[in-house]
Amino acid sequence: MIPVDATLQEILDLVGIFVFAVSGALLGVRKDFDVIGMTVLAEITGLGGGVLRDLVIGAVPPAAFTDLGYPLVPLAATAIVFFWHPQFDRRGAIRGAVLVFDAAGLGLFCVTGATKALAYGLGPVQAAGLGLCTAVGGGIMRDVLANDVPSVLYDKELYAIPALLGAGLAVTVYEVDAYNVFTAVGAALFAFALRLVARRLRWRAPRARRR
Amino acid sequence: MIPVDATLQEILDLVGIFVFAVSGALLGVRKDFDVIGMTVLAEITGLGGGVLRDLVIGAVPPAAFTDLGYPLVPLAATAIVFFWHPQFDRRGAIRGAVLVFDAAGLGLFCVTGATKALAYGLGPVQAAGLGLCTAVGGGIMRDVLANDVPSVLYDKELYAIPALLGAGLAVTVYEVDAYNVFTAVGAALFAFALRLVARRLRWRAPRARRR
Amino acid sequence: MIPVDATLQEILDLVGIFVFAVSGALLGVRKDFDVIGMTVLAEITGLGGGVLRDLVIGAVPPAAFTDLGYPLVPLAATAIVFFWHPQFDRRGAIRGAVLVFDAAGLGLFCVTGATKALAYGLGPVQAAGLGLCTAVGGGIMRDVLANDVPSVLYDKELYAIPALLGAGLAVTVYEVDAYNVFTAVGAALFAFALRLVARRLRWRAPRARRR
Repeated sequence: MIPVDATLQEILDLVGIFVFAVSGALLGVRKDFDVIGMTVLAEITGLGGGVLRDLVIGAVPPAAFTDLGYPLVPLAATAIVFFWHPQFDRRGAIRGAVLVFDAAGLGLFCVTGATKALAYGLGPVQAAGLGLCTAVGGGIMRDVLANDVPSVLYDKELYAIPALLGAGLAVTVYEVDAYNVFTAVGAALFAFALRLVARRLRWRAPRARRR
Repeated sequence: MIPVDATLQEILDLVGIFVFAVSGALLGVRKDFDVIGMTVLAEITGLGGGVLRDLVIGAVPPAAFTDLGYPLVPLAATAIVFFWHPQFDRRGAIRGAVLVFDAAGLGLFCVTGATKALAYGLGPVQAAGLGLCTAVGGGIMRDVLANDVPSVLYDKELYAIPALLGAGLAVTVYEVDAYNVFTAVGAALFAFALRLVARRLRWRAPRARRR
Repeated sequence: MIPVDATLQEILDLVGIFVFAVSGALLGVRKDFDVIGMTVLAEITGLGGGVLRDLVIGAVPPAAFTDLGYPLVPLAATAIVFFWHPQFDRRGAIRGAVLVFDAAGLGLFCVTGATKALAYGLGPVQAAGLGLCTAVGGGIMRDVLANDVPSVLYDKELYAIPALLGAGLAVTVYEVDAYNVFTAVGAALFAFALRLVARRLRWRAPRARRR
């Protein structure tokens, strides 16, 4: 194993926070919240998964409460959405944008969640599981707060599977000492692309039969 | 006080995870989620209360993230429900099954939650309180995620009281050095039975008067 | 910096728990829950924000699980509401009372959250942020459990801003060695009054434009 480059981890974390925060702020627009509600939703969506991850591995206080960049990034994301979102005036465009930004966050956070868990001594399977939790955690909190059923439950296009596979990929490259900016971003892009392809092609998980 | 038998604790925990996970997967069927949504709900229902307990007592990483059996049990529970639930074709049968499995988890988790808290040095009253939190935590997360009001709030048949009494019983036998497989299972059965009896006999807690 | 007076902190915490718990129990009345549902909602509203704060700063077990007074105060609040609330028989009076008690808790918890975070070594900006999280955390849990959209998201009268300013004020007096019972209560009253004034005068945060 190699020590994870702290700068790389932080940059991936911050980009993941940014895109998740954009998805939160956009959901705030769609729900007709004011700018404070948008900010709260952006902060929780961007930081929630990482705080959960850090509490689980015992990295307290969580990065969100020690590194000033962490809470500032969702503020910037909210400001951008606040002024720029009227570009999205077509029907359904906000919904689509929430989806794409959420997928980008999913990809980045499954990677940083898994590798930070490995760095704190979790086994490979557990680290992949925590990567999945990190990736879906912020989105679950966003949807619960906005009183929606979380995507991870009702979404018919395999929401959790890309995050789990991306986390598994990150664990694999980490375990073979090949974790670097290219493999990390590659694993994130893989999960991101798989999520969007699964949605586009309407890959579905089966439901239990009902008589 | 006696040290808690680690194997006994783990077995009780795993059985509790299994029955709670079944209740989560069944709720997923009732809500018409696909197999991934069922799995997520089973994992969170089965593991949520124990993760909360472990974070509170500082047992990090929580057992759910160190012991591979913990996340595997809800997978098995989901698979069983997925293939076997069509047996429940009568009206209301799924709702009844959720209730029974939830009551079994409630009984087991109030015991393991309370005794693990004692083992980590909490006082007896606090340990009983944490047993209650462990027992109701996973079910609250399940219901919130599925966008229901949690049973612990609206249920009219004393949902929380059996868990609190079961936890109190576990603390008592632990404090008098009589904690073993029989007393532990006995306390769990007591809470389980009390929950179902209270429901059958429609024991009700009073509501505040309204003019 | 001065060490925070432990007794002062605990008293402010307990008063904050009491008023938040009253808001939770009253919401339980409004939602027509029975006395157990009221108690659960009171406990979670009163203790939730502080447990979150303590987990984040690594103060485990959280005070709610070590200090017996913490869980007893919401019990007392529930009993008082249970017997006394029929005084509120006028239309809208319960809603108004929830609001005032919630504002009082908001004021007290932003102060104790911020100063406990400083005492555990967080930087001033992060401590103010954690004060905000402590203040809004319990109310968010209350509203999510009762299946409402949390006030902090949809409320149009700057819910989060008074808490953030009160926390900032507490951090400021702490950093200049002027933290004592008068400045602490003053900061809490400032946030409380600002919340109610903002509501009365209908100060609004802007929404994002929609074409």
